[in-house]
Amino acid sequence: MLAMRLYNSMVSGNCYKVRLVCAQLGLDLELHELDVVDRSNRPEVIGALNPALRVPTLVLDDGRPLAESNAIIDFLADGTPLLPDDPYDRARVLAWQFFEQYEIEPNLAVVRFYAIFGLTAPPGLVEARTSAGVRALQALERGLDDRRFLIADRYSVADVSLYAYVHVAGEGGFDLTGFPNVEAWLARVAEQPGHIPITQA
Amino acid sequence: MLAMRLYNSMVSGNCYKVRLVCAQLGLDLELHELDVVDRSNRPEVIGALNPALRVPTLVLDDGRPLAESNAIIDFLADGTPLLPDDPYDRARVLAWQFFEQYEIEPNLAVVRFYAIFGLTAPPGLVEARTSAGVRALQALERGLDDRRFLIADRYSVADVSLYAYVHVAGEGGFDLTGFPNVEAWLARVAEQPGHIPITQA
Repeated sequence: MLAMRLYNSMVSGNCYKVRLVCAQLGLDLELHELDVVDRSNRPEVIGALNPALRVPTLVLDDGRPLAESNAIIDFLADGTPLLPDDPYDRARVLAWQFFEQYEIEPNLAVVRFYAIFGLTAPPGLVEARTSAGVRALQALERGLDDRRFLIADRYSVADVSLYAYVHVAGEGGFDLTGFPNVEAWLARVAEQPGHIPITQA
Repeated sequence: MLAMRLYNSMVSGNCYKVRLVCAQLGLDLELHELDVVDRSNRPEVIGALNPALRVPTLVLDDGRPLAESNAIIDFLADGTPLLPDDPYDRARVLAWQFFEQYEIEPNLAVVRFYAIFGLTAPPGLVEARTSAGVRALQALERGLDDRRFLIADRYSVADVSLYAYVHVAGEGGFDLTGFPNVEAWLARVAEQPGHIPITQA
């Protein structure tokens, strides 16, 4: 049987979501690393697989491609304990994942991107994204009130999706000490069976 | 039976997705309009329902809340012809919806927001979001090559999600004449049974 092929970046939290879920589900991945700064080869390498030209892009063992980190992990986790069966719980998983792509990733990941590559951002961008990122973290902090995990008191792909960029927020200069619910939740996610760090291929 | 309550904005494409799907599925909505410029009452009105304080926020007829436009319409459409049953097709619906929230909405909707309210954007923001929006439209144009609809040659919630802000892109100054696949697809979406315009409550 062919392994699934993941077009990957080791620094991308979005790609980490896929590696983490596969590690926890015991699924093999063949990694194909793409540059996240020089993207000039993307049309040639993944143009036929993902019109948005982004990583992660997954190719299933039957050759069919799938794009978007959260769509990928939900597909892989369907029927496992990582994705609830109840329709309302599934809708709430998605709600957190859409929140993540709209309010967390564009702020925390973008600020981190400029920081870890030492690149100069357009004027005002880091300040604006930092403020918006803090507001997003405040929403996550409220969402975790009295909760051990985001959905149904149980670890799920919703936690994976939010963990990916929140646990490395410090690399973009965010200080999580004012977010006690978030900090305790990050520790619980990292204790789950099969957990791997973002640095692990 | 109680109707579902939608915390709504008539100018929001995200809220329009919910109104459109409910119109096409014959579901009643009680609309509760919120201001999208002055958001000061949001914590009081929807704070207990949606930690992100955004519209749309839906309250189901049993009182349970649900946030995020795409999560809401997928929940409502599950088991209907608007959401495929096949797991891979469902994953591709989600992939397009995550693309929409990451690449279409933050660009097309934000530029349109400043335009229709006559507000002054931070320096450079409209230019940056316009460029990124054009790249997103190019990805959508490629994704619609040889396709009548986004998924499985059949109208689905993926089309609803992308239609919401793309069909009003001109209000933000985007010119769709260079995107023939997109223009033809917009016309097909608007011809679907039960279609309502964004201006219809």
